[in-house]
Amino acid sequence: MEYRKIKDEFQDDHDVASDVESLKGKSHTVASSNIALATLGVGSSERTNWKRKGVVTCALTILTSSQAILIVWSKRAGKYEYSVTTANFLVETLKCALSLLALTRIWKNEGVTDDNRLSTTYDEVKVFPIPAALYLFKNLLQYYIFAYVDAPGYQILKNLNIISTGVLYRIILKKKLSEIQWAGFILLCCGCTTAQLNSNSDRVLQTSLPGWIMAIVMALLSGFAGVYTEAIIKKRPSRNINVQNFWLYVFGMAFNAIAIVIQDFDAVANKGFFHGYSFITVLMILNHALSGIAVSMVMKYADNIVKVYSTSVAMLLTAVVSVFLFNFHLSLAFFLGSTVVSVSVYLHSAGKLR
Amino acid sequence: MEYRKIKDEFQDDHDVASDVESLKGKSHTVASSNIALATLGVGSSERTNWKRKGVVTCALTILTSSQAILIVWSKRAGKYEYSVTTANFLVETLKCALSLLALTRIWKNEGVTDDNRLSTTYDEVKVFPIPAALYLFKNLLQYYIFAYVDAPGYQILKNLNIISTGVLYRIILKKKLSEIQWAGFILLCCGCTTAQLNSNSDRVLQTSLPGWIMAIVMALLSGFAGVYTEAIIKKRPSRNINVQNFWLYVFGMAFNAIAIVIQDFDAVANKGFFHGYSFITVLMILNHALSGIAVSMVMKYADNIVKVYSTSVAMLLTAVVSVFLFNFHLSLAFFLGSTVVSVSVYLHSAGKLR
Repeated sequence: MEYRKIKDEFQDDHDVASDVESLKGKSHTVASSNIALATLGVGSSERTNWKRKGVVTCALTILTSSQAILIVWSKRAGKYEYSVTTANFLVETLKCALSLLALTRIWKNEGVTDDNRLSTTYDEVKVFPIPAALYLFKNLLQYYIFAYVDAPGYQILKNLNIISTGVLYRIILKKKLSEIQWAGFILLCCGCTTAQLNSNSDRVLQTSLPGWIMAIVMALLSGFAGVYTEAIIKKRPSRNINVQNFWLYVFGMAFNAIAIVIQDFDAVANKGFFHGYSFITVLMILNHALSGIAVSMVMKYADNIVKVYSTSVAMLLTAVVSVFLFNFHLSLAFFLGSTVVSVSVYLHSAGKLR
Repeated sequence: MEYRKIKDEFQDDHDVASDVESLKGKSHTVASSNIALATLGVGSSERTNWKRKGVVTCALTILTSSQAILIVWSKRAGKYEYSVTTANFLVETLKCALSLLALTRIWKNEGVTDDNRLSTTYDEVKVFPIPAALYLFKNLLQYYIFAYVDAPGYQILKNLNIISTGVLYRIILKKKLSEIQWAGFILLCCGCTTAQLNSNSDRVLQTSLPGWIMAIVMALLSGFAGVYTEAIIKKRPSRNINVQNFWLYVFGMAFNAIAIVIQDFDAVANKGFFHGYSFITVLMILNHALSGIAVSMVMKYADNIVKVYSTSVAMLLTAVVSVFLFNFHLSLAFFLGSTVVSVSVYLHSAGKLR
């Protein structure tokens, strides 16, 4: 149980990771392909946007899938003895470093401009701590929800995030989805949950009222943090994403430092910061940092809805890949859920408001 | 096992019943409300059609639900000792009698016309045996499929009927569904299957190739019989539905008589035609006959797609009603499947081709 808890927490932390990040790797590819297109005079700005959106979405999907596979791999290896809060802190630090690295390259190539300078104003920076604070609060709540729901039940309830993200996206960002797209979004939530069904899933229906309330509050916190990050990043469209990420990650580091103190102070003080780290831990931290970068790019160039679809499809891809890697057994529920998710992806695209 | 077999067969026989039937009860209501509307000069022909379509669809949904509840009830009572083929024969006979009853009323009120006279031509009647023959063939196949699939697995595979009906509807009747409606139809199939999932459902994935082939052939036979019946009924739109039903049922009686000889000759010869009949058996025969009437009306005034949606929604209604009647326990899979079915109903209506 404790073991599942840690796993869940690390997964959630990917969400934290998610909403605060940097460029590098992929973004570099995107930037250079954009330049290539522009030089050739081939693509309109519309086409460039679509290509960029496609690349970051694919990157996020692949990184999220490989992340889940790393989790399964590390489960097999039975290594989960490190403290999760220190790993989260390192993810934030790595992303911060990658943002700076990307920025130094940009400064070298383009010079320092108003849009890519690191210095900021109170007015710009004051909102940046909010997503990190929301996630910290959510992760703390997570310790208490396990009094009401077991870990597999919590995995099921986490699909409420899909609905909360959709609703908050509509309310906070005031962006409209068509009715067909809403239908697709409800189906995405149902399909993901169906794909995860197993013989114990029904126990989640016995969740008590406090358990439900906490699950809903956590879904709202997570959805709000995601949507709010998108609002922050998109508020200044011309501002370089690496600068925006840098500031988000600085606060991510700060709030994760608080989490270390609250949750793992004794363990870190007695056993050391890196106690229990393995090669897989390092790979997972690297993967989380890169996924974080991808989420940030999706927030900048697409939106939270695309992020949710992308990570949901990743969940299904993971299961399929696991069949080959770990001899996983796919259930009928998985096939049905995957079909429903596929139809929902189609509906999201077919239902676009004109 | 034998017991489930019989139950399944009776249920399927409702499909036989389905596609061959008469007016009365409901149709009377429809007819009289149409007359009322026409007299008042209120409704356009469009409005009358919609109302008629709505009434017959609701009737079918309610009758199909109550049918499933009767099956559960009779299961509880443990009475399944009658021979199913004789019951099917009586259903056809009852529907035939009801068609004639409705016709005598019409003849009395409107006089005998070209559209409502019982006599027919070879050209009109030659296609009428086909649906009944297809169902007979399908029911015979059913005896063999249980060598490859167990009864709960067969219930799951029966959802292939939804897809086969959609495909054959498109091919044979050449009616178009929009892409959104196709999405809805795939979801209907997934949703119904999801709602029926239980801990043993995964076994169906181990079905061998001959089992899959038989299930697909049976789905095609059933879909073809349904679509073909619609084609027959709609070929002569002005022809009175009771006359069309009368001839369909006459052949239904004939083919069910053949089934009695093939499957239950010994039992009937030794124990008598009505051996094992109970009050519930009589109720079930009555219900099947009335459901058959409703299906026929749906074929005349709506189509096979509406029929499939109607019987699928009935399946969900049955489960909800069973919670109150029999203390049924609804699974998470049921909630997810029901949500998917609800969205699919919405998509069918929202996706109408203009």
